[in-house]
Amino acid sequence: MRVAILSPIAWRTPPRGYGPWEQVASDIAEGLVERGHEVTLFATADSLTRGHLEAVAPRGYEEDPALDAKVHEALHIARVMERADRFDIIHNHFDFLPLAWSRLIRTPILTTIHGFSSPKILKVYREYDERVAYVSISDADRHPLLTYLATVHHGIRTDRFTFRPEHGGYALALGRIHPDKGVHQAMDAARMAGIPLVIAGIVQDADYFRDEVEPRLEGGHVRFIGPVGPSERDRLLGGALVLLHLVSFAEPFGLVMVEAMACGTPVIATRRGSVPEIVVDGETGFIVDDVAGAARALGRVGQLDRTRCRRLVIDRFSVDRMVNGYVEAYERVTGRKETPPARPRDLVE
Amino acid sequence: MRVAILSPIAWRTPPRGYGPWEQVASDIAEGLVERGHEVTLFATADSLTRGHLEAVAPRGYEEDPALDAKVHEALHIARVMERADRFDIIHNHFDFLPLAWSRLIRTPILTTIHGFSSPKILKVYREYDERVAYVSISDADRHPLLTYLATVHHGIRTDRFTFRPEHGGYALALGRIHPDKGVHQAMDAARMAGIPLVIAGIVQDADYFRDEVEPRLEGGHVRFIGPVGPSERDRLLGGALVLLHLVSFAEPFGLVMVEAMACGTPVIATRRGSVPEIVVDGETGFIVDDVAGAARALGRVGQLDRTRCRRLVIDRFSVDRMVNGYVEAYERVTGRKETPPARPRDLVE
Repeated sequence: MRVAILSPIAWRTPPRGYGPWEQVASDIAEGLVERGHEVTLFATADSLTRGHLEAVAPRGYEEDPALDAKVHEALHIARVMERADRFDIIHNHFDFLPLAWSRLIRTPILTTIHGFSSPKILKVYREYDERVAYVSISDADRHPLLTYLATVHHGIRTDRFTFRPEHGGYALALGRIHPDKGVHQAMDAARMAGIPLVIAGIVQDADYFRDEVEPRLEGGHVRFIGPVGPSERDRLLGGALVLLHLVSFAEPFGLVMVEAMACGTPVIATRRGSVPEIVVDGETGFIVDDVAGAARALGRVGQLDRTRCRRLVIDRFSVDRMVNGYVEAYERVTGRKETPPARPRDLVE
Repeated sequence: MRVAILSPIAWRTPPRGYGPWEQVASDIAEGLVERGHEVTLFATADSLTRGHLEAVAPRGYEEDPALDAKVHEALHIARVMERADRFDIIHNHFDFLPLAWSRLIRTPILTTIHGFSSPKILKVYREYDERVAYVSISDADRHPLLTYLATVHHGIRTDRFTFRPEHGGYALALGRIHPDKGVHQAMDAARMAGIPLVIAGIVQDADYFRDEVEPRLEGGHVRFIGPVGPSERDRLLGGALVLLHLVSFAEPFGLVMVEAMACGTPVIATRRGSVPEIVVDGETGFIVDDVAGAARALGRVGQLDRTRCRRLVIDRFSVDRMVNGYVEAYERVTGRKETPPARPRDLVE
């Protein structure tokens, strides 16, 4: 199939560091190339792909303040739309803006809705609900007023995460330091359970850090180590007894939970958003309702089978599985099967 | 001709107060309706027109903080582009963004470049230089790397400005209080010439007001009266001996100079941007190079003929003349003359 992947241009595709939408777009593009599809990646000019790269923006506008985001967004989207006839499908990872071109081209468009940055953008998704096929990244993130073709959970490259059968006895909270991520709840739960806690991540909300996190650092049971690079992240995830993911918002898809499980580390997470689609309660972690529940679960989490966690990620949350999900979705949208159909019976001599 | 006027949606069209692009779009739309053209105005839903109104955004996003500008810009532009086949020409007043749709439709597009908010937006204008016809609002505002179809100066409704043969003996500085507008230079020039000065306008740059304007208010020769409504503005303009417009930047088109002259008031302005296209040096005002030159000109400005100022505006800067300029431009772009061509000689019996 001739597939155009429209990536965001905030960051390089794949991103050097942060850039979750660009990462997913890259993984899909490369997975499609591996399967023999003809892939054109529309991304920044410094992007990397084994497919064909089409670029207007030299770099990500978040990486180069000299670039005007609005100017480059317009030129970037126009570039794919003006070439639409060359593709069997356009797979949009660029949020709602490209939809405004969709009625002027004939090529089918599939849009992965990576999240609703604001309820106001729903207006655009509703306007193009009949024209564009929407894919949700979790059932929990579906909006009741939109029509969806499928849910395709994000997948990770499991070979980039090291399975560790033995843990180091600490709980881990990993992510942005922000009230959404429930960092201080993790601190309270670990203290109640008497288990040491490691916190890693950038401080996104300095007031929150000062008011809720810093005062709880006293006593020595908690260590805050700031942001970590990929290899330290892998060691931290794999060495943990458990990932404490006590999010206080409906997270569309909690990738860090999948990454922890890929290392064999179970997850204790709040019953919000995509959590029940990612954690199998009592098997790969525990789903809890509050800090007290998290503290109780911390006492039992050592009994869970770490190989089971890894296994579940390979089965359900690999890049391969994600790419298969999207190929199926493309086939439904285009009505085109890539594998040749079986030879009709009545033509066999 | 079937004309689509694509207005911005920051403000209502025509604007209730500020909104210069919306004002021009409105004046053109209504002028075309008067001439019998079939006009569709794409603007906010509360806009006023005697043509046909097409709207997505209920109100201007600057007038209603609940509206998301990016969402409504996308839907607004898509609305005209999806209906492009219904028009002989689309006249874009919406800056660069609509150009990104232009290769996906067949209808000719004419874009009035109301100004370059940043040098970065040039990239989009260059990309679509061959596809879209550009109109500059002054020769001075032309960018050397772009191809222009014409310059069409803005026009005003001269009947909204009262001609006053007798002036009140004061100089006037009218506009935003901002270093660009040369307010403190006007104060210095008036002081040097011994002529009282009235300053009216909103304080856009509070630091500038405190540091440069306020200290010069002492002594009683200068009166600062803040922002003024349309009727007071008309009285102030008409009662002035002269408008002091000592701008320190290349203003694309200085509408206030035209408004002053419409009331009979000559203009002393710096030799920057569009000034030499608007003021006839020695006839409707004086073009100067510095504060000292402005002070000298203040001594001579009383000799100028106020009826000559009014006359020049009616001839060169009326809405009628602006609309004629655009109709000519449309005809060049579409190759379509509205007046039936003379019957070919060899077919005459």
